[in-house]
Amino acid sequence: MINSGQTYPDRAALHAAEVHRGLMRGIAPRGESIVLSGGYVDDEDDGDFITYTGEGGRDSNTGRQIADQVLEGGNKWLAHNCVEGIPVRVTRGHQLDSSYAPARGYRYDGLYQVTSYWHEKGRDGFLVYRFRLERLPGQSPIGELREQASVSPGVGNALGNRNPQRELTTSSRIVRSSAVGNRVKQHYDHTCQVCGIRLLTPAGPYAEGCHVRPLGKPHNGPDTTDNVLCLCPNCHVLFDTHAIRVDGSLNIQPSNKPLVFRVGHSIHPDHVKYRISISA
Amino acid sequence: MINSGQTYPDRAALHAAEVHRGLMRGIAPRGESIVLSGGYVDDEDDGDFITYTGEGGRDSNTGRQIADQVLEGGNKWLAHNCVEGIPVRVTRGHQLDSSYAPARGYRYDGLYQVTSYWHEKGRDGFLVYRFRLERLPGQSPIGELREQASVSPGVGNALGNRNPQRELTTSSRIVRSSAVGNRVKQHYDHTCQVCGIRLLTPAGPYAEGCHVRPLGKPHNGPDTTDNVLCLCPNCHVLFDTHAIRVDGSLNIQPSNKPLVFRVGHSIHPDHVKYRISISA
Repeated sequence: MINSGQTYPDRAALHAAEVHRGLMRGIAPRGESIVLSGGYVDDEDDGDFITYTGEGGRDSNTGRQIADQVLEGGNKWLAHNCVEGIPVRVTRGHQLDSSYAPARGYRYDGLYQVTSYWHEKGRDGFLVYRFRLERLPGQSPIGELREQASVSPGVGNALGNRNPQRELTTSSRIVRSSAVGNRVKQHYDHTCQVCGIRLLTPAGPYAEGCHVRPLGKPHNGPDTTDNVLCLCPNCHVLFDTHAIRVDGSLNIQPSNKPLVFRVGHSIHPDHVKYRISISA
Repeated sequence: MINSGQTYPDRAALHAAEVHRGLMRGIAPRGESIVLSGGYVDDEDDGDFITYTGEGGRDSNTGRQIADQVLEGGNKWLAHNCVEGIPVRVTRGHQLDSSYAPARGYRYDGLYQVTSYWHEKGRDGFLVYRFRLERLPGQSPIGELREQASVSPGVGNALGNRNPQRELTTSSRIVRSSAVGNRVKQHYDHTCQVCGIRLLTPAGPYAEGCHVRPLGKPHNGPDTTDNVLCLCPNCHVLFDTHAIRVDGSLNIQPSNKPLVFRVGHSIHPDHVKYRISISA
């Protein structure tokens, strides 16, 4: 196990210690680790929360985005790890424009979970994939790591086995409930607005509230009934992963069937518009 | 907001402070709170984790179980709160046979989530409902409460508003992933063993690993492939809530359709037997 806070002088040392395989790319071959080193201007770093920009579409000389990114390669692996709940190792490099960057070299900062992904127009005007990562609990706080950080003598100092927490069990899916979500679910008697199914359990019917414009940073959707759909868990997964999408006429794509609304409930057009902007 | 650790001399004071409504029953009218006071010999208390026995079927004179419990009243409300992710306030009484019992009176110990429910034969030979509760994070540790506990002068001392954290957003469903679960899901190419659906997302197919004999206390099911089914989220919810059940011939009830197995995977009969014992 590699401890959070372990630092390495360069990418070669990171690679040799098997913290992050490869010398150039930010996303390791199967998305099991990423390095934040300031390559993408769209990255955001709040320590425990990171919004990480996917790979591809950049001019190798200027570093500017010159084409849309696609959900392939490292991007697809990070999306896969999101869906499967597979943790991702995060390393920060000294080049990073963040108060959490190490003074020198590269610091391994522990395991994060990819909690969502989407795409949006980046600063250069092309579509980029974005991944929201949250640091898993039960690790030394990121703030304390910053105090302890120091450049190690290199690979020889990477103690422990070479399989950093790879078998860790984590949650692959967390469904939040809220008073607002419960109101919408009751309005629809827990009937899915996409497929019409109603799951009946001995404890009552079951459905999930799904925010059209997602809650929390960086989307900052409101927790209001005009931003919540009542979905069954299957359609909720498909919606969250953008496998099904809502269009401007409130039809579900690619099936082209209408979202079913009941009198007294609607989704605000601004939230639909936002959703379309992040769902291809 | 009522702080964890607040103590009350008696049930009347608990009721007046709106921590737990009612003077006799362990489960409040809508399951929004419970009191642990040693009434049921089947209760287990590990502080942050509680296995709580439902209500009903007891002789009011002897306190012994004389009939099966049913999923009605307080039991149904606790199951409802499990499915909906609604937190439950927990109060411990001094009569409780637990190292977490207060020395005197009743201590409010904060918010817990009902993470699962099932039924089983209790010590007197009748079916009882059991509820697994886990203390929500972000509260003062239960160990520290014990040190601070002292009997308050009574109701007049219950500071703050009378709506203790009722609007708290929490998770209604957490799906754990594991290396073992992922192996089973790959074996089935993420096809649901109950309904045959395969959810395809841009990040790959999605399914959930479902333990037949649940993990963790008090079931202690193993995390092995012969204890895991590959289910879609909808069937997983139905299975977890015992809306659908597996029988001794590996048929799903009440539909009476067979669980679909692929060559190279089976469920150990002992785990099926255990599941049947907790699923009616």
